[in-house]
Amino acid sequence: MPQSCPNLNESRHYADLLSLPFTDLRRLLTAARVSAAEVPMAAGLHYNYAAMPVEERHLDLLQGLSDEFDLVGQYQRLLAGERMNVGENRRVLHHLTRGQLGPAVMHDGRDLGAFYREQHQRIFAFAEQVHRGALRGSSGAAFTQVCQIGIGGSDLGPRALYLALQQEARRQGCQLMTAEFLSNVDPDDADQVLARLDLARTLFVLVSKSGTTQETLTNETLVRVALRHQGLDDRAHLVAVTSETSPLAGNSAYRDSFYMDDFVGGRFSSTSAVGAVVLSLAFGPAIFQALLAGAHAQDALALQPDIRHNASLLDALLGVYLRNVLGYPCSAVLPYSQALSRFPAHLQQLDMESNGKSVNRRGEPLPYASGPIIFGEPGTNGQHSFYQLLHQGTDVVPLQFIGFEQAQGQRDLLVQGSTSQDKLNANLAAQLVAFAKGRADENANRHFAGQRPASLIRGARLTAEALGALLAHFENKIMFQGFVWNINSFDQEGVQLGKVLTGQLLAGTAEDEALQAYGRLLGLRPPA
Amino acid sequence: MPQSCPNLNESRHYADLLSLPFTDLRRLLTAARVSAAEVPMAAGLHYNYAAMPVEERHLDLLQGLSDEFDLVGQYQRLLAGERMNVGENRRVLHHLTRGQLGPAVMHDGRDLGAFYREQHQRIFAFAEQVHRGALRGSSGAAFTQVCQIGIGGSDLGPRALYLALQQEARRQGCQLMTAEFLSNVDPDDADQVLARLDLARTLFVLVSKSGTTQETLTNETLVRVALRHQGLDDRAHLVAVTSETSPLAGNSAYRDSFYMDDFVGGRFSSTSAVGAVVLSLAFGPAIFQALLAGAHAQDALALQPDIRHNASLLDALLGVYLRNVLGYPCSAVLPYSQALSRFPAHLQQLDMESNGKSVNRRGEPLPYASGPIIFGEPGTNGQHSFYQLLHQGTDVVPLQFIGFEQAQGQRDLLVQGSTSQDKLNANLAAQLVAFAKGRADENANRHFAGQRPASLIRGARLTAEALGALLAHFENKIMFQGFVWNINSFDQEGVQLGKVLTGQLLAGTAEDEALQAYGRLLGLRPPA
Repeated sequence: MPQSCPNLNESRHYADLLSLPFTDLRRLLTAARVSAAEVPMAAGLHYNYAAMPVEERHLDLLQGLSDEFDLVGQYQRLLAGERMNVGENRRVLHHLTRGQLGPAVMHDGRDLGAFYREQHQRIFAFAEQVHRGALRGSSGAAFTQVCQIGIGGSDLGPRALYLALQQEARRQGCQLMTAEFLSNVDPDDADQVLARLDLARTLFVLVSKSGTTQETLTNETLVRVALRHQGLDDRAHLVAVTSETSPLAGNSAYRDSFYMDDFVGGRFSSTSAVGAVVLSLAFGPAIFQALLAGAHAQDALALQPDIRHNASLLDALLGVYLRNVLGYPCSAVLPYSQALSRFPAHLQQLDMESNGKSVNRRGEPLPYASGPIIFGEPGTNGQHSFYQLLHQGTDVVPLQFIGFEQAQGQRDLLVQGSTSQDKLNANLAAQLVAFAKGRADENANRHFAGQRPASLIRGARLTAEALGALLAHFENKIMFQGFVWNINSFDQEGVQLGKVLTGQLLAGTAEDEALQAYGRLLGLRPPA
Repeated sequence: MPQSCPNLNESRHYADLLSLPFTDLRRLLTAARVSAAEVPMAAGLHYNYAAMPVEERHLDLLQGLSDEFDLVGQYQRLLAGERMNVGENRRVLHHLTRGQLGPAVMHDGRDLGAFYREQHQRIFAFAEQVHRGALRGSSGAAFTQVCQIGIGGSDLGPRALYLALQQEARRQGCQLMTAEFLSNVDPDDADQVLARLDLARTLFVLVSKSGTTQETLTNETLVRVALRHQGLDDRAHLVAVTSETSPLAGNSAYRDSFYMDDFVGGRFSSTSAVGAVVLSLAFGPAIFQALLAGAHAQDALALQPDIRHNASLLDALLGVYLRNVLGYPCSAVLPYSQALSRFPAHLQQLDMESNGKSVNRRGEPLPYASGPIIFGEPGTNGQHSFYQLLHQGTDVVPLQFIGFEQAQGQRDLLVQGSTSQDKLNANLAAQLVAFAKGRADENANRHFAGQRPASLIRGARLTAEALGALLAHFENKIMFQGFVWNINSFDQEGVQLGKVLTGQLLAGTAEDEALQAYGRLLGLRPPA
C-alpha cells in the first residue's frame, strides 16, 4: 500500500492551498471565532484553532487533501496490523496497548491486543503485591521508591507522565511510591540519582526492548554494584521491561520481566509496559488505567474523517499548512501547567524522531520539508525567557498552547483580587491575543506585528484521563502528518551512524582520523 | 555612537561572504584540522571550530567584518559605561559584577564596580553567618535549605548554575544547603516546591529587580502564608534581592536585602546578587568566587581583536555566517554533561531574549534575520530523542557541543572495557564526525548526507571556574552578535504587550472581545 501513496507536491489540493493569500489573523480573531473554532477531544478537552490563519476555504482544501490521501484509511490499516513501518517491515501497534479499535491483530497465532492487555494485568498484580508489602527488598524492607533505568523512549515519555500526574495522585491520596529516572551514560547522572535513593527500599525497572542499549546496560551495572556494595541482593531489586526475544527476558538476574514487542516503537511506548510498570508502582493501577482510557477515547475520535470533528487530524493538517505553505520551520509547545514541565521534551522526541526524515516511503528523496523543530517550556516561565523572540523576532514560530481551568493541587490564594490560577490563565489568554493581533506603536521598538499563529488545547483539569487524551492526540497528529508527507514515521535510521562510530572508537577500530583526533581531544585513550 | 553603526547588509565583507561557495565539510574535516582549529578560552576550556564550514578566506572576511563594525571597540565602550542599551538609555554593566576590565564606571558619584563588589561581600558574610548557625529560622532551627523565588533571569541562570555545580560541590565537600527554585505562577509549582521543603529550616530568597514582578510577588504571598500556617515568623525566613529603588529595598518584611541595579539585565544577572545569594548559601562563597574568576578571565579574553584568538568573537561571527549567509534559523546546544541539563534553557533565554529583535539601534526595521531559535538537551539523552531530525531531517540545524574529559563525580566503572565517561565522550566525538561527514548508503533511508556544522567547547572538568568561563563566553558571543546585527540586545520590549493584556483581563478592563472570549473558555470570571 505505501508504495502507491502520493507525495505532497503531487496533490492538487496542496497546489490550491499554495495559491491562497495569507489570512490576516488580526481581523480574523473575533470573539465569535474563539467560540466557534473548536473541536471536542476526549476527556473533556477541546482543540481551539481560532488563532490559526485559516478560513473555511482553507479547511475545505485541507479536508480535500485528507480525503485525497486517505489519511483516516491509512490509520485504519495501521490499526488492522498492516506493516506501516515499511523500512523495518513491522506493524505499528501502540494503539492496541490502550484498547481495541480495529479487528484482532494476530501474529504467529497470538492475538497481540490480548498480549498487551495480559502484560498490563501482570504489571498491575505485581504493583499491588509491592504496595501491600508482599514483595520486598532483599533486606526485608518494603519498597518505597522506584527508579526507571532507560533512555529515549524508555525515559522521556514515562518521566513526563510521572511529573504530570504527581500532584493529581497526591490529590487522590495515591502517590504510593516516589519515582526517579536514570538515563544518561554520563556517570554524574547515576551519581546524582543514586544519592537520592534509599537503595534498600528501591525497586529498579530496567527498560530496553532489545536488551542491548549501551547507556541502559552500563547504568544497570553501576546500580547493581551499588546495591551489592550495601550488602543487598541486586537480583531482588531489579525487574526488566523488554521484548520476549531479548537476553533480559526471563533472566534470573531480574525479579520479574514484563514484555512489549517490536510493534511498539520506543517513543510510542508510554502506554505499554514501558510506562505501565513505573506509573503503576508510583500511583497504583487505577491512575494508569485512567490514562489508558483517555488515550483510547482519543484514538477512537481520530477515526472521524471530517477534519472539523477530528482534532488530531485537523491539528496535523494545520501543521502541514504552516510548514509547507507558510514555510515555518519550527513550532513551540507551551503548556500553562507546571505539571507538564517535561511534556515538551517528550513531544520533541515524538515529533522530531518520527518525522525528521528526508526520504519518502518509496525510498526517494523528499522534494518538500517534513517534520519541524519542536521546543517548549511551561508558561508563564517561557514568557520571561524566549517569548521576546516569538513576539518580535525576525522569524515566525507557530505556537501550541495548552491550559486548564483548574490547578491540580488545592493550594491557591487570592492575591490582589485574583488567584494564581486566574493569573496563569489570564496570561495564557493574553498571549494568544498578543501573538495574533499585535499592537501598532509609533516607536518601532514597541511595535508588535502580530500575525503569529497559535492553537490552544484546553481542559477542566489535568487528570490522568486528560493526560492520556493529550498524549494520544499528539501521537496521532504526528502519525497523520507522516502520512501527508509520505514518510515512515516509525523507524529511526538516523541514530545508527553515531552508534557505529562510537563502537569503533571504544573498540579501537576507528578508521576516520578526524574521529580519532576528536577522541584524543576529549581524553579518550586507545583501549589496552 | 550606536546611531552611526551600520546595518549588516551595508557591509562589504558581508557581501563578499555571500559570494563564497559552500565549503564541503566532508573533505574539510581532517585530523590536522581538528587539532588546529582551536582557540583557548579561560579556565582551560577550548573552542574548537573544526566542523564549521569555513576556510581561511571565510575567517579573513569575518575578521574584516569584525574590524569594519569595530566589535571589540563597542565592547570596550560598553565596559566603560556607555549607554549601549539605547532604547532604555541604560548602561550595560554585568561584566562589572565579576571584575574591572575598563575604567571605573561612576554613576551619581558612586563607583558601580565597587558597589557590586560590596554587595558580594555582604552576601558572603551573610552566607557565612547562616552556615555557622548565627542566623536561624524563627523556631531556632538552623537553615538547611534555600529556596529562590524568581522568574526568567532570576530563575533560569541561577538554577542552571546550581544544578551544574551540585556534584562539583559535593566532590569538594561543600554542598552546605540544598536549593529549590519557585518560579511559575501556576499554583501547582508552589505546591510541589513547598512539599519538598522543611519550612522551619528554609531561607527564601525573593528576587525581583523592580519589586513588582507579578509571578514572584504572588508566590511570595503563598510562601508567607505557608510559613505563618506553621507558626513561623515569615519575616525571619525571607531575604530580598532587588534594586535600591524598589519597594522591597530595606523593607522590614525581609530579614535583609541585597542589591543590583538597572544596569544588570535579568538574563545577565547570574553573577550579580541574583546568583550570589542562592549559590553562596548552597555551596559557600569560595565556589561562587571561582565562578566569578572564570567569567572575568573569559571577559578579558573577549577584548582580543584577532578573531582567531577570541573564542567568543569567533563563535559570534560563525553564528552570523550560519544565520545570514547559509540561512539556518535554529541552533541546538548539546552539552555532554548531565550537570548542564538546564544550561540550554538558560542559553535559550539569554540568546532569544537578547537577539530576538526586528528593529535596529536606529529604530528601523531590520532587512535581515537576527537571533536564531535555541534549544537543547544533554547528550547522550538527546541522541535517543531529536537527533534523528538533526541527522536526516529536511532542515540543517547547526550544533554547539560541550564536553569534558572527566566527570564531576568519582563513581564510574569499567563496563565492557570502557568507563561511562569514555562512552559519553566516544559518543560526542562520533556525533561530531557523523554530522559533518555523513555516510553514503545505497538504501536512501540509511543515507547520511553530512554537511551539518558543529562546534565544540571542551575542557578537563566542569569546575566552577570553567562554568563561569562558559557562561561569560555565551554572554559575550550574544553581545557581539547583537553588535553585528546592529540591534539592542539589552532590552525586551516584546514582553510588554502580554503583560498589559493580562492586567486588563484581571482588572476586568479588557476591551478586546477575543481576549474576553479566551478568558471565558479558560474559566476566568469577571472580577467582582
